[in-house]
Amino acid sequence: MEISEMAAVGGNEHKQETICILGTGDFGHSLGMRLLKSGYPVVFGSRSPQESSLLPSCAQIFTHTEALKKAKIIFLAVHRENYDFLPALSSFLDGKVLVDVSNNLRKNQYPESNAQYLSKLVPKAIVVKGFNTVSAWALQSGSLDANKQVFICGDDSKSKQQVMDVARSLGLTPLDQGSLLAAEEVENYPLQLFPMWRLPLTIAFGLTVFFFFYCVVIDIIHPYVTTNTDVSYKLAISVPNRIFPNVSLILLSLVYLPGVIAAFLQLNRGTKYERFPSWLDRWMLCRKQLGLVALAFAFLHVLYTFILPTRYSVRWRWMHSMIEESKKNKTMELNKVQSWRVDVYFALGMMGFGLYVLLGITSLPSVSNVVNWREFRFVQSKLGHVTLLLCTAHTAVYGWDRFLQSKRYKWKLPQAYMLGMVIPCIVLVLKLILITPCVDRIVTKIRQGWERKPKHKQALV
Amino acid sequence: MEISEMAAVGGNEHKQETICILGTGDFGHSLGMRLLKSGYPVVFGSRSPQESSLLPSCAQIFTHTEALKKAKIIFLAVHRENYDFLPALSSFLDGKVLVDVSNNLRKNQYPESNAQYLSKLVPKAIVVKGFNTVSAWALQSGSLDANKQVFICGDDSKSKQQVMDVARSLGLTPLDQGSLLAAEEVENYPLQLFPMWRLPLTIAFGLTVFFFFYCVVIDIIHPYVTTNTDVSYKLAISVPNRIFPNVSLILLSLVYLPGVIAAFLQLNRGTKYERFPSWLDRWMLCRKQLGLVALAFAFLHVLYTFILPTRYSVRWRWMHSMIEESKKNKTMELNKVQSWRVDVYFALGMMGFGLYVLLGITSLPSVSNVVNWREFRFVQSKLGHVTLLLCTAHTAVYGWDRFLQSKRYKWKLPQAYMLGMVIPCIVLVLKLILITPCVDRIVTKIRQGWERKPKHKQALV
Amino acid sequence: MEISEMAAVGGNEHKQETICILGTGDFGHSLGMRLLKSGYPVVFGSRSPQESSLLPSCAQIFTHTEALKKAKIIFLAVHRENYDFLPALSSFLDGKVLVDVSNNLRKNQYPESNAQYLSKLVPKAIVVKGFNTVSAWALQSGSLDANKQVFICGDDSKSKQQVMDVARSLGLTPLDQGSLLAAEEVENYPLQLFPMWRLPLTIAFGLTVFFFFYCVVIDIIHPYVTTNTDVSYKLAISVPNRIFPNVSLILLSLVYLPGVIAAFLQLNRGTKYERFPSWLDRWMLCRKQLGLVALAFAFLHVLYTFILPTRYSVRWRWMHSMIEESKKNKTMELNKVQSWRVDVYFALGMMGFGLYVLLGITSLPSVSNVVNWREFRFVQSKLGHVTLLLCTAHTAVYGWDRFLQSKRYKWKLPQAYMLGMVIPCIVLVLKLILITPCVDRIVTKIRQGWERKPKHKQALV
Repeated sequence: MEISEMAAVGGNEHKQETICILGTGDFGHSLGMRLLKSGYPVVFGSRSPQESSLLPSCAQIFTHTEALKKAKIIFLAVHRENYDFLPALSSFLDGKVLVDVSNNLRKNQYPESNAQYLSKLVPKAIVVKGFNTVSAWALQSGSLDANKQVFICGDDSKSKQQVMDVARSLGLTPLDQGSLLAAEEVENYPLQLFPMWRLPLTIAFGLTVFFFFYCVVIDIIHPYVTTNTDVSYKLAISVPNRIFPNVSLILLSLVYLPGVIAAFLQLNRGTKYERFPSWLDRWMLCRKQLGLVALAFAFLHVLYTFILPTRYSVRWRWMHSMIEESKKNKTMELNKVQSWRVDVYFALGMMGFGLYVLLGITSLPSVSNVVNWREFRFVQSKLGHVTLLLCTAHTAVYGWDRFLQSKRYKWKLPQAYMLGMVIPCIVLVLKLILITPCVDRIVTKIRQGWERKPKHKQALV
Repeated sequence: MEISEMAAVGGNEHKQETICILGTGDFGHSLGMRLLKSGYPVVFGSRSPQESSLLPSCAQIFTHTEALKKAKIIFLAVHRENYDFLPALSSFLDGKVLVDVSNNLRKNQYPESNAQYLSKLVPKAIVVKGFNTVSAWALQSGSLDANKQVFICGDDSKSKQQVMDVARSLGLTPLDQGSLLAAEEVENYPLQLFPMWRLPLTIAFGLTVFFFFYCVVIDIIHPYVTTNTDVSYKLAISVPNRIFPNVSLILLSLVYLPGVIAAFLQLNRGTKYERFPSWLDRWMLCRKQLGLVALAFAFLHVLYTFILPTRYSVRWRWMHSMIEESKKNKTMELNKVQSWRVDVYFALGMMGFGLYVLLGITSLPSVSNVVNWREFRFVQSKLGHVTLLLCTAHTAVYGWDRFLQSKRYKWKLPQAYMLGMVIPCIVLVLKLILITPCVDRIVTKIRQGWERKPKHKQALV
Repeated sequence: MEISEMAAVGGNEHKQETICILGTGDFGHSLGMRLLKSGYPVVFGSRSPQESSLLPSCAQIFTHTEALKKAKIIFLAVHRENYDFLPALSSFLDGKVLVDVSNNLRKNQYPESNAQYLSKLVPKAIVVKGFNTVSAWALQSGSLDANKQVFICGDDSKSKQQVMDVARSLGLTPLDQGSLLAAEEVENYPLQLFPMWRLPLTIAFGLTVFFFFYCVVIDIIHPYVTTNTDVSYKLAISVPNRIFPNVSLILLSLVYLPGVIAAFLQLNRGTKYERFPSWLDRWMLCRKQLGLVALAFAFLHVLYTFILPTRYSVRWRWMHSMIEESKKNKTMELNKVQSWRVDVYFALGMMGFGLYVLLGITSLPSVSNVVNWREFRFVQSKLGHVTLLLCTAHTAVYGWDRFLQSKRYKWKLPQAYMLGMVIPCIVLVLKLILITPCVDRIVTKIRQGWERKPKHKQALV
């Protein structure tokens, strides 16, 4: 084949650059395999080249120094504790790109990041941090179902570019994170566990615990104390199915509360050019997570509701009332108000759940990635508020006139559904105020850059 | 740290280029933050530098002219109405890349796009349009859950490349849209609201309204007029649950109808090298949306069906019939045909719904992104037709012999389920014709490039 | 305009390079449209330029030789059988990048890949394989809902880079697959049909068939033979609803079995630096697919369970027992143990299903793409085992004391649910052993690089 000969003879710049990997462990091995697949010549550097049986057959294994001589980009696939062999190789690393792929076992395990430590150890090398967010397993399996984002940082932008090109040709998505100062953050990233979910989950957990005890008191302890009836079997499904809808509704309203607060803040300040308090910023950033937790609770509520007629205790109750009814020996009439009420309440709930699911689907990264900002806001804000309205109405129709029946107030405590409706109603009322034409006009003007007491002379995008 | 010194002294090409942002508003501020995070030196240009309190601490704020002197890439984060300060700065913009990030309030608000207007105002600058599809909020929050696509257009391909590199290093996905002529489209993009969904939603809405009135007449007005029975409570659940399955089935068949029409067109023309009529092209392009709307209706149908036994009116009816039955004082026999019919009808419906959901999942962008074209077609075409078949069979078994019972024809009108089955049956029959071996062979040949009256001499990919 | 003048005069590198497309078929046409949209000048080469009416108006059509003269990158959109016109044009292809986009009709249709064959036909051209995974339809429709991955391979890395740049500017994601040797794989890719799903689907099918016959024997043939009762109507829903949960549970346990086996293998070997047997590797790579098939079965199980109370035969049975009950003329007591049992069993099932769905959602590519490795493992491993535990407990509580009742053993065969629990119980017991502190400590040490008989002196990442 003439071309490859041509390439071999004439144009070395046309061939992929040789890449050296120091370290023949799991990660080094997987990275090497993947690089070879993408057409890179790969050399491994090992202290004991002859013992490394795991390596891919087409890769060459050399001693450290020999391997370093052959490449300009070196991946260091070695734990931080074993960096001490590097200073001795310093002269071979002069001006070369040394990619630190190491991870630690704990966040902030060392006073400085591995990459910064490395750059002090071998000051002549150009250290680039990266690839630590990719797992050996993902490299091997073709990374179709794992995170493809590769965070890269380093002080030299050309070297960073080279490393990013390598990442790109492996089918990964490199993200430039700036200078080597960012290495700490990059090293901490793979150690974090759902930081954005912590607050929403804590709130959901707190509400669940509260409603659990509240419902246990009202639904289980109260009948036991007053009429000595043991309905403890309600713990498995009835009580949870009272917790789920209330927590879900409150969480959903908490998704829209910060937006409403922000609008009132802007109205009050008469400008959008002032930062929100940091708690509001944090709250707004975890709205998506709040909404998804709310959806999970709504989903469970739906499941727990659909199973109702199949439950033994419910069937027994229905059967019981039916036998009583049949004994009366007179024709029972269909209560039309009751029919309407129950049907409306179910219909509202199911329409609300349908929209809920729609909101959940549009918050999937790949879906939100193909809608523009206006569409995203239309779904998440407009449809979101409609969902909140439907679900609150669902709860209200469920309640119906129960709030008037004094026998429903066990130990004078309000019923669970009432507690669940407080925040949603507040949010809906505030939102109603905001969308009245006169208020809406001012908010819109402010969001387009208008200021009540102009300090900024330019209207800005 | 020796390296960074080296970088500072020797290789200026290795450092990220300074970027200037004119405009200290929301967008300018967020963009600056993000650029700083990615390691770019950022200077802001402001008319009143000392008043801009919102800016990130590490950014420098200068007057317009000073800021312009420091950078080659300038982001203009200012509304179109405020472009008039630019001509005066013309000499400082000479040969520089001026990125127009502006958006308008309405589609086609101005006779020419903002970017083209800008390029007339400062003809010496190289105007690149872009970043207008990204929201300030997405830039701040790290854009994990918002659209990362950045449309870029401009007349100079090297400058465009530079702006695309900036976008890439911010973790965004730049898409080259061609010359500055495309700026109008790029500026309209963030203003559009689900253009592909308009047709499917209109069709769904029309069908819903039609079936609503049809069912109201048959199910509510007819009993009221003939037997003076008020069953208006059916409006909440029974009527919707008659609308949903019919609309869903029709929409699903409309997904597969254009493909069948296209095949017959190709059969008739004897070639694939002729464009389809534009209405067919438009129809084919919104098949996915049609299918997803159909899925939404099917989902609601499932929810409304599962709630059935929990509904008060249904329970009353069952209870009523049970009491009647028990009074008869003879053992009621299980009707086995009825058992079979009901079970088969439910089983078909649920299998159909399962496939429906599968179709929905594979149409998620991230899923369709990891399957190849053959797999995509297998799911969307083969499984899709099976879904249509199952759902049509579900309706047919539901109907059973009702079409023979004259009492079922209220006011001589056909039953709703019959109307719902017309188009699906047509599609299935046509598809059946297409997959008969002899017809299939010709269609396959045509799709592989064969022509009945060959005009094109080459068989093409 | 100084620079753009410069570009016009001096620097052709600022303008997009002209691209030539040989072949005016469907693919060539669509590719041309898309290239024009992205600002590339496009020339078509056709044997009969005047006849090609389908082409976009702004593209120029020439004879082959003329078209070739105008461009350095040539897309060959012609079937392999029609390559024979190329050798005659050899001199015009000298040193040019010739992109082979062809696909075959079957896997390994020819002894060598089309691209390698092409590179022998015109040895002077630099052949790059690519774009064959993109469909004409996706190019036309903007590829929003189709695979955007473009596999590229070729022997010359600079030419490959150029082709990848073209792909990127069309909004596609090029993936470098290495040298032209990979062309065979790249050409086979669009012809494959869910290769990773074959094994999981085969296992699921086998289990389904087994449980089908097992349940038919026990539930339908046994009553027919022993009491001459015809319950064949159970075939539609009751029998499937016995198959689904069992198959789902077994498949779910098969997701976690290989991980447990791998851990025991590593424990036994005392090192992680030894490759697993290939069957275990294959098994581990299809765990995601196994899990999703399991989820599909669980989903059907949920649907089939929720429809229960609406089924005619179930209602008849309940009605029957109710009438019997009412005849007894004594108050039936609520069996509290039964209430607890049924509710706990439903609650476990629904919580399990909730987690199941969560696992399914996190395995969506776009979701797993935004979580880090630790988070992915937390969900897929920790939550996964909890799901398995819940679902197994659901089955156990469903069984309750049935395993003690000898009348339940039809023809002395164990009940279906027992068979379904064998593998899950094994997996859970093995997992329990692995997470006991003493064993866990050793496994963790091994996975961090520790070896019982150290051969590798470096601890590796």
